[in-house]
Amino acid sequence: METYRIEHDFLGEKEIPSEVYYGIQTARALENFYITGIPVAKEPLFIKAFGYVKKAAAMANRDCGVINPIIADAICRASDRLINGEFLDQFVTDMIQGGAGTSVNMNVNEVIANIGLEILGHKKGDYDYLHPNNHVNFSQSTNDAYPTAFRLALYRKIESYIKSLDALQEAFAIKSVEFANVLKMGRTQLQDAVPMTLGDEFHGFSTTIKEDIQRLNEAKMLICEINMGATAIGTSINAPADYPRIVTEHLRELTGIPVTLAEDLIEATCDTGAYVQISGILKRSAIKISKICNDLRLLSSGPRTGINEINLPSMQPGSSIMPGKVNPVIPEVVNQTAYYVIGTDMTVTMAAEAGQLQLNVMEPVIAFSLFSSFTYMENACYTLKNKCVIGITANAEICKNMVMNSVGIVTALNPILGYETCSEIAKEALATGKSIHLITVIERQLIPQFKWDEIFSIENLIRPKFINH
Amino acid sequence: METYRIEHDFLGEKEIPSEVYYGIQTARALENFYITGIPVAKEPLFIKAFGYVKKAAAMANRDCGVINPIIADAICRASDRLINGEFLDQFVTDMIQGGAGTSVNMNVNEVIANIGLEILGHKKGDYDYLHPNNHVNFSQSTNDAYPTAFRLALYRKIESYIKSLDALQEAFAIKSVEFANVLKMGRTQLQDAVPMTLGDEFHGFSTTIKEDIQRLNEAKMLICEINMGATAIGTSINAPADYPRIVTEHLRELTGIPVTLAEDLIEATCDTGAYVQISGILKRSAIKISKICNDLRLLSSGPRTGINEINLPSMQPGSSIMPGKVNPVIPEVVNQTAYYVIGTDMTVTMAAEAGQLQLNVMEPVIAFSLFSSFTYMENACYTLKNKCVIGITANAEICKNMVMNSVGIVTALNPILGYETCSEIAKEALATGKSIHLITVIERQLIPQFKWDEIFSIENLIRPKFINH
Amino acid sequence: METYRIEHDFLGEKEIPSEVYYGIQTARALENFYITGIPVAKEPLFIKAFGYVKKAAAMANRDCGVINPIIADAICRASDRLINGEFLDQFVTDMIQGGAGTSVNMNVNEVIANIGLEILGHKKGDYDYLHPNNHVNFSQSTNDAYPTAFRLALYRKIESYIKSLDALQEAFAIKSVEFANVLKMGRTQLQDAVPMTLGDEFHGFSTTIKEDIQRLNEAKMLICEINMGATAIGTSINAPADYPRIVTEHLRELTGIPVTLAEDLIEATCDTGAYVQISGILKRSAIKISKICNDLRLLSSGPRTGINEINLPSMQPGSSIMPGKVNPVIPEVVNQTAYYVIGTDMTVTMAAEAGQLQLNVMEPVIAFSLFSSFTYMENACYTLKNKCVIGITANAEICKNMVMNSVGIVTALNPILGYETCSEIAKEALATGKSIHLITVIERQLIPQFKWDEIFSIENLIRPKFINH
Amino acid sequence: METYRIEHDFLGEKEIPSEVYYGIQTARALENFYITGIPVAKEPLFIKAFGYVKKAAAMANRDCGVINPIIADAICRASDRLINGEFLDQFVTDMIQGGAGTSVNMNVNEVIANIGLEILGHKKGDYDYLHPNNHVNFSQSTNDAYPTAFRLALYRKIESYIKSLDALQEAFAIKSVEFANVLKMGRTQLQDAVPMTLGDEFHGFSTTIKEDIQRLNEAKMLICEINMGATAIGTSINAPADYPRIVTEHLRELTGIPVTLAEDLIEATCDTGAYVQISGILKRSAIKISKICNDLRLLSSGPRTGINEINLPSMQPGSSIMPGKVNPVIPEVVNQTAYYVIGTDMTVTMAAEAGQLQLNVMEPVIAFSLFSSFTYMENACYTLKNKCVIGITANAEICKNMVMNSVGIVTALNPILGYETCSEIAKEALATGKSIHLITVIERQLIPQFKWDEIFSIENLIRPKFINH
Repeated sequence: METYRIEHDFLGEKEIPSEVYYGIQTARALENFYITGIPVAKEPLFIKAFGYVKKAAAMANRDCGVINPIIADAICRASDRLINGEFLDQFVTDMIQGGAGTSVNMNVNEVIANIGLEILGHKKGDYDYLHPNNHVNFSQSTNDAYPTAFRLALYRKIESYIKSLDALQEAFAIKSVEFANVLKMGRTQLQDAVPMTLGDEFHGFSTTIKEDIQRLNEAKMLICEINMGATAIGTSINAPADYPRIVTEHLRELTGIPVTLAEDLIEATCDTGAYVQISGILKRSAIKISKICNDLRLLSSGPRTGINEINLPSMQPGSSIMPGKVNPVIPEVVNQTAYYVIGTDMTVTMAAEAGQLQLNVMEPVIAFSLFSSFTYMENACYTLKNKCVIGITANAEICKNMVMNSVGIVTALNPILGYETCSEIAKEALATGKSIHLITVIERQLIPQFKWDEIFSIENLIRPKFINH
Repeated sequence: METYRIEHDFLGEKEIPSEVYYGIQTARALENFYITGIPVAKEPLFIKAFGYVKKAAAMANRDCGVINPIIADAICRASDRLINGEFLDQFVTDMIQGGAGTSVNMNVNEVIANIGLEILGHKKGDYDYLHPNNHVNFSQSTNDAYPTAFRLALYRKIESYIKSLDALQEAFAIKSVEFANVLKMGRTQLQDAVPMTLGDEFHGFSTTIKEDIQRLNEAKMLICEINMGATAIGTSINAPADYPRIVTEHLRELTGIPVTLAEDLIEATCDTGAYVQISGILKRSAIKISKICNDLRLLSSGPRTGINEINLPSMQPGSSIMPGKVNPVIPEVVNQTAYYVIGTDMTVTMAAEAGQLQLNVMEPVIAFSLFSSFTYMENACYTLKNKCVIGITANAEICKNMVMNSVGIVTALNPILGYETCSEIAKEALATGKSIHLITVIERQLIPQFKWDEIFSIENLIRPKFINH
Repeated sequence: METYRIEHDFLGEKEIPSEVYYGIQTARALENFYITGIPVAKEPLFIKAFGYVKKAAAMANRDCGVINPIIADAICRASDRLINGEFLDQFVTDMIQGGAGTSVNMNVNEVIANIGLEILGHKKGDYDYLHPNNHVNFSQSTNDAYPTAFRLALYRKIESYIKSLDALQEAFAIKSVEFANVLKMGRTQLQDAVPMTLGDEFHGFSTTIKEDIQRLNEAKMLICEINMGATAIGTSINAPADYPRIVTEHLRELTGIPVTLAEDLIEATCDTGAYVQISGILKRSAIKISKICNDLRLLSSGPRTGINEINLPSMQPGSSIMPGKVNPVIPEVVNQTAYYVIGTDMTVTMAAEAGQLQLNVMEPVIAFSLFSSFTYMENACYTLKNKCVIGITANAEICKNMVMNSVGIVTALNPILGYETCSEIAKEALATGKSIHLITVIERQLIPQFKWDEIFSIENLIRPKFINH
Repeated sequence: METYRIEHDFLGEKEIPSEVYYGIQTARALENFYITGIPVAKEPLFIKAFGYVKKAAAMANRDCGVINPIIADAICRASDRLINGEFLDQFVTDMIQGGAGTSVNMNVNEVIANIGLEILGHKKGDYDYLHPNNHVNFSQSTNDAYPTAFRLALYRKIESYIKSLDALQEAFAIKSVEFANVLKMGRTQLQDAVPMTLGDEFHGFSTTIKEDIQRLNEAKMLICEINMGATAIGTSINAPADYPRIVTEHLRELTGIPVTLAEDLIEATCDTGAYVQISGILKRSAIKISKICNDLRLLSSGPRTGINEINLPSMQPGSSIMPGKVNPVIPEVVNQTAYYVIGTDMTVTMAAEAGQLQLNVMEPVIAFSLFSSFTYMENACYTLKNKCVIGITANAEICKNMVMNSVGIVTALNPILGYETCSEIAKEALATGKSIHLITVIERQLIPQFKWDEIFSIENLIRPKFINH
């Protein structure tokens, strides 16, 4: 037999199942918001971050003498349970919600209050002893607690994503050494350009991801500025004068994240600029990894009617109808993840622009967008590394033959013969199918064989020296 | 004790848990793709649609004499189980996947094969009797089966979304009658304009949604063009000559959806134009509903320091710190859903542009985007209707007082006094705080009182007649 | 010596150069808005459309007996000058402007008033005889005149764009006939798939553009719904009762565009849904043409280290350093134009969502976006056709050799040998480099030579018949 | 009589008008690219930057001993003319062009060559003496010269934009002092929240823009990494070994911009990550300024039926039909500019993702997007400052009355009465229209008058102290 307790707020009363730790406001949120069907519990880092916020607030309130140390202690111990990942199933509000996060914040306040009540030997719902608003939320508003928890969680998400990028760039770096002597044709605009090595190409992939890691490391500092103590709109109404400073210090110590207090709390409470920028930098990395995946698909195209310079590992039969077909399914799934990320950047853009006056009420969809996009891209990076990059092999012979068969190598003769003569040679080669060597050395005798050998040694093709007449 | 069967494909062998109905290719997909963690099972309409596709294909293959009627019948019966919503938990591949949907298609082929095998009295995995590729997928390729199933499911999604729009527009229409006599100030550019009624305004909301319903009804026809029988790239390789026509007919009959066969199967197999357009029209409706929600939030702003023309139903306490505050949480959650939809339109755009040669391999992320966006917006529409619109009340007295106190009503005197004189009157009213009546009738005596009464009768303010000098 | 006339409005007086036809409000707009530096004169169709709007309004006002026929006639004759493309240099307001288009509308009102004054034998600025607001703008507001003119101009833009698409699709259709017998390999996921013809591929390009033409023809009807007579907010304040109907009829007759009057003028005055949808469909076509350009660049890649199935006409030397390099510069410029269009769709999205209450004040940036995007895409289509498509040639021998050398042709043996055997053959071919023929006919003797010849005749490869055991 | 000279390239000959300084490749570009009709001459900073690039390259080539000092000197002197802003009308290629910028680069090479030829006493077109490719472009490729010039120009654009932001933030800062004592109601979610000052609000606007200035100052360093000497694909083919270092030093000295040489030239030559990030940060600032403009429009809404806390300066009559109406046209035009910027961020995204292998050929549309968006936003910032912010006035009495009349002030009683009691008071106030004072002090006598006076003193409302029981 299911039992209930009765809870009330200023809109009335509701029956709350006895066993749950959330209360009436969470119950209302459950009724009000059913959009994605994805509860906030899906982001454990977010709940954990809320645990830190509530704990730090309780400590600061205690330090300021505005709540009873016994109550503060109960809040701290209850918050620790959240920090430890317990009670996750109590966080049931939909990721996309109205109210600027009030429902999540109240969900947390209520769960902590009820855990705390039990710690203190009371029953769930006996809020006289420990109240979600009067105690757990003391000196706070959703408008400072929510963005602060969001930022702490986002900081960890970024760190976690950086790790996946690091693994990916390292995999490319290892391959770049492996392929250091694979001579191949470089291509610009999909047209034959000049020689390079496959190692160079993979080194470039590694370098470009390393740059993104640097950008993300810079960007994560942007969200270390928090507004705890701003309360409702940044005037710090109902918070003791020293509270903002103290709670920030506690939070820094508890989390190890270098959070600082915003100088202009009014501004900080309505500003979403940091999210926009972080979304933009996440998008930057998604775009660049998508470009790499496009390249991997191009370079492995064929095998018989494409470029076929490299082989991606075979992960699954490629077709339900074409036997033997193996597709570049891993880069493909990464491309699609990148497109998802690009989409959420637009969501973040819309949401950020929709802020009004003292608050941006659209922050929950920003959180939903960034959380999901960081998670999916992190998954995509590990997938790309483990299921694809580390197993790539080169078709070195094919690569080299394409270079020698190309017209583009005529570029190396520019400094000796001039652009116009080289253009004529190229034109003849393209029209007749003759090789550059045949035209230049044998037929037109424009340069002697020994010069040719010097210029077109494998070594010089790989690392071209400037050779003048 | 867990037991396994051994399955193989041309990449090798794998152990498959005995109890599952999917096979080796699904198992590979499970290993290869972990991006969102959301399995295709989350879209039951999609699995159901695949059931119809496989059943229709089996019937057409039987009609063409290319598969044994007994096998065809087993496929049909197995497909019916999917159509009935059974075996949903067997559809485990991630919504975002590489391979252009091959993994979902093979997931379906394998599950149907194994259900069919049991129907025929064989054991799961005895594919000699009923083979995922040779029988279930006969005359098909992922490249026709997947988009066809996607389109069938999308058709039903659109229908379902239309229903939610219909409910929403009706709620606004009912309110427009209720508010027919509430005189209020119209505003352009957030500045006082000329009078109207609140009924007019809500009627406009109803009208605008009705237009979207029409657009969606048109748009859903765009995806009725299917490419069954195209097989791999549209040349119908490995499909009997009559098969494309016959399978299309079966599909039309089985589903009741007016599908037609594309005339140019090569084009149809790589084209994603219809998805782009449907995404655009979904976005259109999201934008417009977002605008309505913005209006509802503006009109209900206050209560004491805003416009306060209407009251939204109180759904939950609005603040963890400010007592008595009630926020427009429902419109807010709808706004955010709209931003999600706008984001996915960008994802669809990127994915559609990334098609190459004979296929668009990015279709899974298009499906993921459209499925989730239609679902979320449908949820948002019902939420908006049930939790907000039907409970809206008007502050009629406040509305009327604002009209009478406004300067904008001077516009009604234009035809009599001319734009320039009216401008002067307006200027004086704004500078001095005097009413238009005082300046026009009493002080300047520009029109007699009876004319004023005629022009500014409630009736004439609500439905202005043209009154000349 | 420059001379001036003095004009005034309710904000004060300004000196207006004697020779210009615009007046004080245009002069203010010139001072207020300097964003793009691009004047509305850059869109002659827009000014022309305004000419029609003002003429139709004057005729309707005359018919309703609310303005003097002599004045109405002067307005009509002045409007005709605009319709003829005269006075274009008088339309100086910036394309992006605040005020929801009031400045453009007043620019038009003032220019027409002053032309009309001269027609009537008065001096510019003697507005007592013919006033920009009291006469030219009679029964109108910016809020109906501006969107109506915008829609008329957009209708013509769409028609013009359709013509360019038609030229482009025809060019592809002609090529599809020319290439009807060029056997080539189809590719899915950039991997070898099954054979097709180059003619099929180009036919697909033609088909897909034809579909866009249909979509645009449907879409252009969406903007035939106008709101003339709505005046300020849709209540028709200050317009005679019959005026909306009559002005719409005049406009339909004068322009030949099948405009109709919106049923709900309140809704029509603030709705921008049609622009969103049209932008979406323009984007659809841009995406699809971009995909075609990507394909053209892939197919012409090389010449020695790429796919090299087709040759694009050489338009310019491709490199400032690499002699003989010729790049696919025309598809590249079309891709970039498509990206511009995709960008403006986002601008339109933001602008549409920003509508508030009785008006969307962001319409000027919607107009700027759609006008520029339609113009650029039209230019891109003609460029693509004239500078690229009509000059494309096929490398038929290369195309055919790739087919015969491929593994993908094993698919044609599926119905006879089954998917699994074919998979094994494919695997062996890929591993050893052997041809499918060698393995199947010679070594394993799985099918006799005559059967092979039947299946792999050029004819059967081009239009595969279903061949069973 | 027009005269011509004949020029040729490897595609053939063309007549070039005698008086122009550009040559055959520019002439081909003019024929090939007609998309926007906007020539590169519209970005003088870009041409100037090319002047620096070509001068630095000539100096480095001279230093490396690979071109004749007399020729190098002529190139330097010709380049100086470009740096001085001369010959701008010779830069005629369309902003959107294929070929990855080859046409602009050749346009520059040709113009410099012909200016140089005249300096050397030769005729235009006598390229034997000074050749566009062999001399002006020596040691360069479009693929390093173009992005380097783009980056230099972009650096200056960012600096210039920062200046406009600085002017804008300062204007807000000045106003924040002016409004320091204007008590007003803060609003969250458009609902009455708690008191603040108008000065706080404007200070927040200033702060938020200052943060963007910091972000832009950081971001501009991202584009100081250049790839001069990479030549075609980053292997430095045809460039002397010391050239990359030397040319970078010259460039740093000539421009004063702290450019550095990329460590991985292969990566740097195809990477567009920095553009994506800068576009994202520009978008960030546009979003935030758009939000400010939305706030200004909200706060000035009315005058009689809106919030009416502030007055924006009257810039122009607001309506062609409604006398006396004055609209917030300046914020409106800024909003629209922001939407343009958001659109171009999407264009940049698409273009960046489209890079392939050793080059991103879509860079011209990235340049077009960033150049136009920085220019428009800079114009918008100055417009906002000069035409709006500096003239804003406050309606202090109205602001204060709204506070005192509000329910939200009950929040200040939370620490004394608790959240639940305050909720009841708020509820009663909302239902009955009674003031908080009446209920709390007079009727329920929950706090004494002196306590009330302490809490609700103007001073405490403006800067709330924490007051406990």
